[in-house]
Amino acid sequence: MTHPAAANFNGQKPTIDANDTAMLLIDHQSGLFQIVKDMDVPQLRANAIALARAATLLNIPVITTASVPQGPNGPLIPEIAEAAPHAQYVARKGEINAWDNPEFRAAVEATGKKTLVIAGTLTSVCLAFPSISAVYAGYKVFAVVDASGNHSKLATDLTIARLAQAGAVPIDIMATLSELQGSWNRADAEQWAKVYTQAMPHYQLLIESYIKAQQVATEHELLDSQR
Amino acid sequence: MTHPAAANFNGQKPTIDANDTAMLLIDHQSGLFQIVKDMDVPQLRANAIALARAATLLNIPVITTASVPQGPNGPLIPEIAEAAPHAQYVARKGEINAWDNPEFRAAVEATGKKTLVIAGTLTSVCLAFPSISAVYAGYKVFAVVDASGNHSKLATDLTIARLAQAGAVPIDIMATLSELQGSWNRADAEQWAKVYTQAMPHYQLLIESYIKAQQVATEHELLDSQR
Amino acid sequence: MTHPAAANFNGQKPTIDANDTAMLLIDHQSGLFQIVKDMDVPQLRANAIALARAATLLNIPVITTASVPQGPNGPLIPEIAEAAPHAQYVARKGEINAWDNPEFRAAVEATGKKTLVIAGTLTSVCLAFPSISAVYAGYKVFAVVDASGNHSKLATDLTIARLAQAGAVPIDIMATLSELQGSWNRADAEQWAKVYTQAMPHYQLLIESYIKAQQVATEHELLDSQR
Amino acid sequence: MTHPAAANFNGQKPTIDANDTAMLLIDHQSGLFQIVKDMDVPQLRANAIALARAATLLNIPVITTASVPQGPNGPLIPEIAEAAPHAQYVARKGEINAWDNPEFRAAVEATGKKTLVIAGTLTSVCLAFPSISAVYAGYKVFAVVDASGNHSKLATDLTIARLAQAGAVPIDIMATLSELQGSWNRADAEQWAKVYTQAMPHYQLLIESYIKAQQVATEHELLDSQR
Amino acid sequence: MTHPAAANFNGQKPTIDANDTAMLLIDHQSGLFQIVKDMDVPQLRANAIALARAATLLNIPVITTASVPQGPNGPLIPEIAEAAPHAQYVARKGEINAWDNPEFRAAVEATGKKTLVIAGTLTSVCLAFPSISAVYAGYKVFAVVDASGNHSKLATDLTIARLAQAGAVPIDIMATLSELQGSWNRADAEQWAKVYTQAMPHYQLLIESYIKAQQVATEHELLDSQR
Amino acid sequence: MTHPAAANFNGQKPTIDANDTAMLLIDHQSGLFQIVKDMDVPQLRANAIALARAATLLNIPVITTASVPQGPNGPLIPEIAEAAPHAQYVARKGEINAWDNPEFRAAVEATGKKTLVIAGTLTSVCLAFPSISAVYAGYKVFAVVDASGNHSKLATDLTIARLAQAGAVPIDIMATLSELQGSWNRADAEQWAKVYTQAMPHYQLLIESYIKAQQVATEHELLDSQR
Amino acid sequence: MTHPAAANFNGQKPTIDANDTAMLLIDHQSGLFQIVKDMDVPQLRANAIALARAATLLNIPVITTASVPQGPNGPLIPEIAEAAPHAQYVARKGEINAWDNPEFRAAVEATGKKTLVIAGTLTSVCLAFPSISAVYAGYKVFAVVDASGNHSKLATDLTIARLAQAGAVPIDIMATLSELQGSWNRADAEQWAKVYTQAMPHYQLLIESYIKAQQVATEHELLDSQR
Amino acid sequence: MTHPAAANFNGQKPTIDANDTAMLLIDHQSGLFQIVKDMDVPQLRANAIALARAATLLNIPVITTASVPQGPNGPLIPEIAEAAPHAQYVARKGEINAWDNPEFRAAVEATGKKTLVIAGTLTSVCLAFPSISAVYAGYKVFAVVDASGNHSKLATDLTIARLAQAGAVPIDIMATLSELQGSWNRADAEQWAKVYTQAMPHYQLLIESYIKAQQVATEHELLDSQR
Repeated sequence: MTHPAAANFNGQKPTIDANDTAMLLIDHQSGLFQIVKDMDVPQLRANAIALARAATLLNIPVITTASVPQGPNGPLIPEIAEAAPHAQYVARKGEINAWDNPEFRAAVEATGKKTLVIAGTLTSVCLAFPSISAVYAGYKVFAVVDASGNHSKLATDLTIARLAQAGAVPIDIMATLSELQGSWNRADAEQWAKVYTQAMPHYQLLIESYIKAQQVATEHELLDSQR
Repeated sequence: MTHPAAANFNGQKPTIDANDTAMLLIDHQSGLFQIVKDMDVPQLRANAIALARAATLLNIPVITTASVPQGPNGPLIPEIAEAAPHAQYVARKGEINAWDNPEFRAAVEATGKKTLVIAGTLTSVCLAFPSISAVYAGYKVFAVVDASGNHSKLATDLTIARLAQAGAVPIDIMATLSELQGSWNRADAEQWAKVYTQAMPHYQLLIESYIKAQQVATEHELLDSQR
Repeated sequence: MTHPAAANFNGQKPTIDANDTAMLLIDHQSGLFQIVKDMDVPQLRANAIALARAATLLNIPVITTASVPQGPNGPLIPEIAEAAPHAQYVARKGEINAWDNPEFRAAVEATGKKTLVIAGTLTSVCLAFPSISAVYAGYKVFAVVDASGNHSKLATDLTIARLAQAGAVPIDIMATLSELQGSWNRADAEQWAKVYTQAMPHYQLLIESYIKAQQVATEHELLDSQR
Repeated sequence: MTHPAAANFNGQKPTIDANDTAMLLIDHQSGLFQIVKDMDVPQLRANAIALARAATLLNIPVITTASVPQGPNGPLIPEIAEAAPHAQYVARKGEINAWDNPEFRAAVEATGKKTLVIAGTLTSVCLAFPSISAVYAGYKVFAVVDASGNHSKLATDLTIARLAQAGAVPIDIMATLSELQGSWNRADAEQWAKVYTQAMPHYQLLIESYIKAQQVATEHELLDSQR
Repeated sequence: MTHPAAANFNGQKPTIDANDTAMLLIDHQSGLFQIVKDMDVPQLRANAIALARAATLLNIPVITTASVPQGPNGPLIPEIAEAAPHAQYVARKGEINAWDNPEFRAAVEATGKKTLVIAGTLTSVCLAFPSISAVYAGYKVFAVVDASGNHSKLATDLTIARLAQAGAVPIDIMATLSELQGSWNRADAEQWAKVYTQAMPHYQLLIESYIKAQQVATEHELLDSQR
Repeated sequence: MTHPAAANFNGQKPTIDANDTAMLLIDHQSGLFQIVKDMDVPQLRANAIALARAATLLNIPVITTASVPQGPNGPLIPEIAEAAPHAQYVARKGEINAWDNPEFRAAVEATGKKTLVIAGTLTSVCLAFPSISAVYAGYKVFAVVDASGNHSKLATDLTIARLAQAGAVPIDIMATLSELQGSWNRADAEQWAKVYTQAMPHYQLLIESYIKAQQVATEHELLDSQR
Repeated sequence: MTHPAAANFNGQKPTIDANDTAMLLIDHQSGLFQIVKDMDVPQLRANAIALARAATLLNIPVITTASVPQGPNGPLIPEIAEAAPHAQYVARKGEINAWDNPEFRAAVEATGKKTLVIAGTLTSVCLAFPSISAVYAGYKVFAVVDASGNHSKLATDLTIARLAQAGAVPIDIMATLSELQGSWNRADAEQWAKVYTQAMPHYQLLIESYIKAQQVATEHELLDSQR
Repeated sequence: MTHPAAANFNGQKPTIDANDTAMLLIDHQSGLFQIVKDMDVPQLRANAIALARAATLLNIPVITTASVPQGPNGPLIPEIAEAAPHAQYVARKGEINAWDNPEFRAAVEATGKKTLVIAGTLTSVCLAFPSISAVYAGYKVFAVVDASGNHSKLATDLTIARLAQAGAVPIDIMATLSELQGSWNRADAEQWAKVYTQAMPHYQLLIESYIKAQQVATEHELLDSQR
């Protein structure tokens, strides 16, 4: 019998194949975001949206769900549905682990994909529980920890260890986006650049400075200090 | 021969089954708490109590013990016995690893459970030693690191790596509570909400704001700024 | 003309006289607490309550107020009114600076006190604005920054500098409580100890260990390790 | 002779009077933003834009300028001109201190205002130099340090001390916005709420949760966990 | 009337004159040290002892006192009396501010010195209260904040601002020791070096490496890697 | 073929057996300590000495060595030889990995022990290289990371992952001391308490307060505040 | 079938053999460096250069490549080519994973080496993707994380876990340099010392102090304080 | 009598006039740098050198000195003399405060300048003592705290407060360089840019990216991803 840590990519290359991927975005709710303390909440919000945009660019199926959004956990942030209009929303009946909800599992199976990119708030609960369940059910799971959000950094450290031990691949937003994109040599390259500026404000600065520098060179603009 | 890291859940789903679980709360003593530097001590205290409350809600057996409470380590914090009145206290005879004490091991075996949720101060000693021993004795072990408390963050980083290597599951308080609870669709849901506010003060704020917002809507209360 | 920084204690000893003091607790609301990032929110909550308790012990007049509690800012935390049942609540009409509200100013004047201990969430707004206004109106102002809560540490650094520049005394919770208490040689000393354990969890641990150590000595209890 | 620290509000109330205010937004450039290390750059960007929006709501004159935007410092971020379309841009001729540029000084004087709200990247240079110069020239200066951005936190600590010593008021974004707004009892209150969500993402979460909670109450929506 | 911030060195050079100095070491107690969170407790302990040693080297009078050492605050750390055997201990009667105790004030006055070097745990209480009182009584006060210890870094930031505002000089251990020593050109230079290694472990490393490097040069020792 | 991560305790309990243990203390040199940035150097120094003391209490063989102590790396800190007078020093000939030195390997083998407790500065080099080599040579290796010291925290994070991957047990000082000690029910218990106060200054405070509290109870000492 | 984590050193010693090593330095570009937030950029730059220097000293083949250096990512830093003039540059065609580029793979294979030392900016993308691909292709991979640079510390934590899980060895700069060097007993020892001062500024200080101390001893220089 | 805090710029503009300035660079020694813990040592070293370079560009007199460089404090870093070959070195006779040395004071007076830019290691001693003395002697003093280096961040916080209280201007490296430079509209602008890249590595990245972007535009270079 093999090691469980190897379960979901044993003998396969442990990387994301965009053609075999479905994306699960779980419990990104306004109330739960108030509890997040392991990363900047605006960065978390931007990262979750960036995942949705990448899925849209690649026609990757997206399933969303929420934990009792009528209560203190609050509503799903609206930008996810805006960025992935094709996303399917599955209402649960109170199950904390989305995988425990039969409609949710059925929706995942209906995609026909065997690789899952998952993000969920809180990381140690809403991301970790379905990730571990999905590995156990035979899926290749990539758990996007910095598009999830947790109640403490220590809890995130613990969750990374638990996910790795259970055979899910812990991954960050940039690796996820880049493995999905694959190459800059593609027709929609500019749209990918916009996805990155969404998740990396310093990349936006680079592009702004780059465009200006080229414009100064092309238009032979004089430096103010040399006027 | 299989990998020891797989020992306690090899072939089984690496999650907590509340029906097969006993809880061990080890050495949560006032003196030892002064040494804790890897997390806020009030948060640690709240998390340990939350574990005890969850055990009471689910009728999970609880065993407590202390390391020479007559000396500088100080007394057990009283809230644990208050939150879990059914807990059994086992006095040791100086053994640092509680598992080395025959009465303690016997008490665990007497529960008939094969899954152990363990917390203990200091994390690298009072949590880690019995966890590793219990894995070796064939138990499924969930080590609740942020209900334990350690002398440095580096020591906790080391302990997480050691626990994972030894086949115990490192886990945080929210994942532990949520796996035990399973679903919000249950009769005692409100009592679980109180457990969470115990361990997550920001969740308490959410509930307070939520109730007030609904009350304003229901009672058509005017905004002060519109009077 | 003298320096404004000297305005509120020029020629007087810059310390708190409990007999000349009124306490203003401003905008400690559940929603605003979600925005606080310069200190632990549970600690902030405990510190605000400790101020109210101290005022009750000393019969210091307390005035509370809230910023549009019917809106997203949320309700006042209930513990303040519980800890200071004699507190007077003044509803405002949308003024951000409580001092701009005539009823609020009148309530302060009605106390007849010339020394004000003020705390308010957010520090840079709800504490700072009335503090600066009150100094300008001739009061001695002690601004309790760690019973207030702010949106960033940098904002708090800025506010400390601004308060000092404007002639308010920036102060922390322990200095405030201790200057009010004055001496341990008083009938209600034990009640003061409880106030401190409220605001300093490590002090609670000290007391728990202290009582146990004395009990072991008095009752000649044997160490577990020597049984 | 009076103390220089008192120069710009000696005998006056050290607060912002929106009717007497001009706003100077200096050198918020894409290249310079890469150097900022004392605060999150997205937060800085949001704060600078929030200042521009507030100025537009109140018809406060805005003057912008840039330090050699044709060179590595890069272009001004475009959102400032978008948020304050009435802003006047003054090109400099290489002067590091904007106040050294005669056209810039003339533009400030032309507003007829004696209170200046200033922000500039880098804090210790582009904010501090004009602030100190303007105090010396007799203006009341409010230096918005967290809408500026600096190369290190230590440099910001030093600049706060220097600004206070020179008689400028060090202030944060929330205090600046709130002193300008004054009261929630105004026709454009909702637009102010949007300005705050721009600069405080956690405030946006509060509003999202608040609206949902009221909607659930009003529409008698059932909780998912009770279906 | 002059600015109170200038009270204790107005017209005098704001530096320590060892010949005019008495040292007050207040409430360095084992229990209170458990509450210290603004600096490493071993460093605090070392710094307090270093002050006592310096006083002994220079025959500076030392007065020590404790806050109810029979209670949870615990005993004075013994090293201070060991390092300054000439220190005079004054028991208080419960006064939190040592300056409120008549015997303590009398002991200070009996030294005939007008410059006071003060350290006390907690910084915001046991250091700040006597410092402010002594400035008000006309003494030059140097408040050694990093030989004191406080319950939070924010509280220390507040205390530094309050001390400066009240006219006490906030100072660190190295500045205090070095101003007392004055010059390395003195007979007891080696003893001073030992004081510094006490308070600066990296200085001890420097000396160890220095001695070894000189020994290798003098004794023509071969490098192990060249054997 | 088994997993290499399991190499050194496959089928055995992954804990330290004091009777089968030798201790290797490598390159704790004054110069190298200046480079340490992942932990407090005084704490590192104390932890290394505590290991040596524990070895002496248990008659565990100790082998020390240094990396070119005649050069900038500097001399071994003297306290290790003082705390473990029975330690054997092995000079190397420039090998960075002590295990590459035949005399060093021979000295280890001569102890007849199969469990090694190792600490070395820098962690990622002087601890990690011999640890990985010893695992490969069939030893059970416990790598005491917080008695070692490294050039950055990131480097230590990397080394913990590498050590675990290679089959060494990453461990902290408290776990190491406690596993060696085993029980407080032993004749030399008091000497062990002294070892802990060496490595944990807060434990020393606990003991000081404990003794005083018992003394007050036994001798019926009056509180100062009740005199 | 063996565990993938063991793939690249199963049965072999998991250390670097300089004679079997090629070095891949990927995407160290001026624009990408602006995005790096998990470590100091100057330290990152120094570490990357140190790798190149070490490769030159040992005649290790070096392959460099860049990700669209004509765009906002910017040019390769020039010092790498200066430090390793023998490095081969391979231009890609937009592939994000350098291993996806056939010329790059061919260049690696042409070296005939089976051990790869890899560094790349961003760590979670440009280092991690080729590392995982190379492990899957049968290489022994050492991933030098602190010569790479990532967009957040959390992303680096995730990448370390992913790399270890995939069978690459996560390693730091000092371990990499030291395993390559092996011993100080070699002709080019002094050149290695220079490489270390490049990457460890505190080592440079040690050498400067060491030389001066020996010079003082040799030349019998008098101390200034004894003149 | 005026407030001492106003002493050195009372009635004057509190800015640096390059024509009236001398620069004092005190005790930047290899040994003392090992003790620095309030900032990165490489950054400190770069900042001190940048000051020297700026002085050379402007023909500002520079005086250097060292504290017993024959002892453990170590030699002056050589780059200062390299960057300012015109600097005058004054040997002291053991005085800790350089201002206490008559030759040093004479050298300062001989420059005929009344504005002093000072940096010194340690900040709280070697920078603060001469700064306070020079203010007292009537000089305008600018104390460059981040070109100095201190034993702890808390000590630096204390020193900033003390310097401001004593009437010295606390300032950072960028403000100092920029006030000295004044304008980019000058013949040596490119040399100033090099000084900034010395002290701000991210500025160097900006320039590298800027040049490449312009080159791509000018030479119509194709993007790799579009080949």
